[in-house]
Amino acid sequence: MDINSFSDHINFLKIEIDKALRKIPVKDSPKYLYDPIQYVISGKGKRLRPILVHLSGQAHDADPSELMKVSLAVELLHNFSLVHDDIMDGDEIRHSKPSVHHKWDNSAAILAGDGLFSLAQLLLTKLPIIVFQRFNEVALTICEGQGMDKEFENNSSININHYLSMIGKKTGALLGLSAEMGVLLGKLDNHKNKDLFEFGFNLGLAFQIQDDYLEIFGDESSMGKSLGSDITSGKQTVLTILAREKDSVSWDKFVSSNSDIQGYKEYYESSEVKVEAKKLIDEFISKSQINLDVVPKEKRDALKSFSQLILNRKF
Amino acid sequence: MDINSFSDHINFLKIEIDKALRKIPVKDSPKYLYDPIQYVISGKGKRLRPILVHLSGQAHDADPSELMKVSLAVELLHNFSLVHDDIMDGDEIRHSKPSVHHKWDNSAAILAGDGLFSLAQLLLTKLPIIVFQRFNEVALTICEGQGMDKEFENNSSININHYLSMIGKKTGALLGLSAEMGVLLGKLDNHKNKDLFEFGFNLGLAFQIQDDYLEIFGDESSMGKSLGSDITSGKQTVLTILAREKDSVSWDKFVSSNSDIQGYKEYYESSEVKVEAKKLIDEFISKSQINLDVVPKEKRDALKSFSQLILNRKF
Repeated sequence: MDINSFSDHINFLKIEIDKALRKIPVKDSPKYLYDPIQYVISGKGKRLRPILVHLSGQAHDADPSELMKVSLAVELLHNFSLVHDDIMDGDEIRHSKPSVHHKWDNSAAILAGDGLFSLAQLLLTKLPIIVFQRFNEVALTICEGQGMDKEFENNSSININHYLSMIGKKTGALLGLSAEMGVLLGKLDNHKNKDLFEFGFNLGLAFQIQDDYLEIFGDESSMGKSLGSDITSGKQTVLTILAREKDSVSWDKFVSSNSDIQGYKEYYESSEVKVEAKKLIDEFISKSQINLDVVPKEKRDALKSFSQLILNRKF
Repeated sequence: MDINSFSDHINFLKIEIDKALRKIPVKDSPKYLYDPIQYVISGKGKRLRPILVHLSGQAHDADPSELMKVSLAVELLHNFSLVHDDIMDGDEIRHSKPSVHHKWDNSAAILAGDGLFSLAQLLLTKLPIIVFQRFNEVALTICEGQGMDKEFENNSSININHYLSMIGKKTGALLGLSAEMGVLLGKLDNHKNKDLFEFGFNLGLAFQIQDDYLEIFGDESSMGKSLGSDITSGKQTVLTILAREKDSVSWDKFVSSNSDIQGYKEYYESSEVKVEAKKLIDEFISKSQINLDVVPKEKRDALKSFSQLILNRKF
């Protein structure tokens, strides 16, 4: 598949996923519960995770309608965690729109998240029980990741391994699950589920590190939010952690006297933190590709192209 | 079974359920997630719902170890909803101890609830898929009930049917599910699941109406909290709704000039609201017993005794 037809394929999947999301049976009332849920479901999103479910499933001859159900469940799980994380982190913008707790209030957002999580489970009721099991194991892992994220706030003893462990439980585990699901539903060899999990997991690490990176070095239009908000929130990112690990004295001195994004850019460049973060991204991308060796050669291309595409953020 | 040996049986079940709750594999870290979860799991509770799962299952020859798993899942579902409801309702005391969000904070309580819900799902992974399906259908119903509860706040057009519909989705559906689970896991005729759901559902309505009733007419020690808090919170209860339906003019006049529990007691007595609430409780208890006709006569006793016992609140 050449890169143009691959791009078309991804766009086709995204449109189908968006259509299917809108067809999830969501009642009208009580409005207190279902209005915010509709708002989330009909909102924008890159649909990376459900697209990965489909691509992995197509590489393993899985049934398309089963893939669609699981891909929607994974997307709802993702959205459930975003709605609750946004409350905990006080984030007021999500996908260029007010976050649920900001548009309504905390109570409505707590309940909407709970409802999304329940709806996700109900999409899995006609599928093999292993799907349900892995889904909920990863749901609990994501809670652990969020717990670590909260513990790390304002803790300056966090090192790069702590950070990788935390993003592994959040972004890594969910992309891992997405890739794994394709194997679990597939008609080919489903002992490869761990390999595909690892593929998605490492891809997720690369993706999250890049997210932190683009928060400083990206452009606002492609990120769908104003940049540099990590600076004002005091949130730890791969850049702040690498900078502190490199030279904590000059880093602390820098932070106490600088608050504009341009200053941070220059610090990360001159201290080579920027280069190191880039290296980490490349490292995890390379690692992820090794796990694709178990996929038959002629079916591997789409997953390889996907890896490049999400890093280019061109959709 | 005479009433003493029934009481012993219930106590035995409660002890076994408490033991099994403590054996649920809960990790140590991240503490941000797991400390509040441990706090909830090791807390007190009447364990009404898991006891009902066992009693119903025993009446249908279900496997004891499967019953235990489902009974724990139902109890965790109940606790998940309490932890989140307590945030939304601002309730600071639960089972005579600080509620999770009051002891920690809102973020920790949101996450603990999410973790409890995930743990509940993981208890169901070796069971028939219908168990998982009904479990999540009811989880969504409970969210709907909580959504209605929030919509009803400070809405004086709510009538008794709205109220019954709301508590049906909360307390009714969960007790219904508990009774139904025994049939779904049973070796006998599992077409009776709807009847057993109805039994638990009506029992739940009676139980919730009685809860509102005891908030005013009960004694503090058996309720595990100070009474009359519904008055200060402005929450609608079966008593306030019946009083308004009876004579909204004199009720509004009364509310605007009274705030002590003794005044309310007298109002509910002289207006016969107290008697009517009692009647409603008896009505739903009677209704619940009819649904037990499908249970073989010799196995019906424990479920009948349970109905009486929970209304007497003697455990």
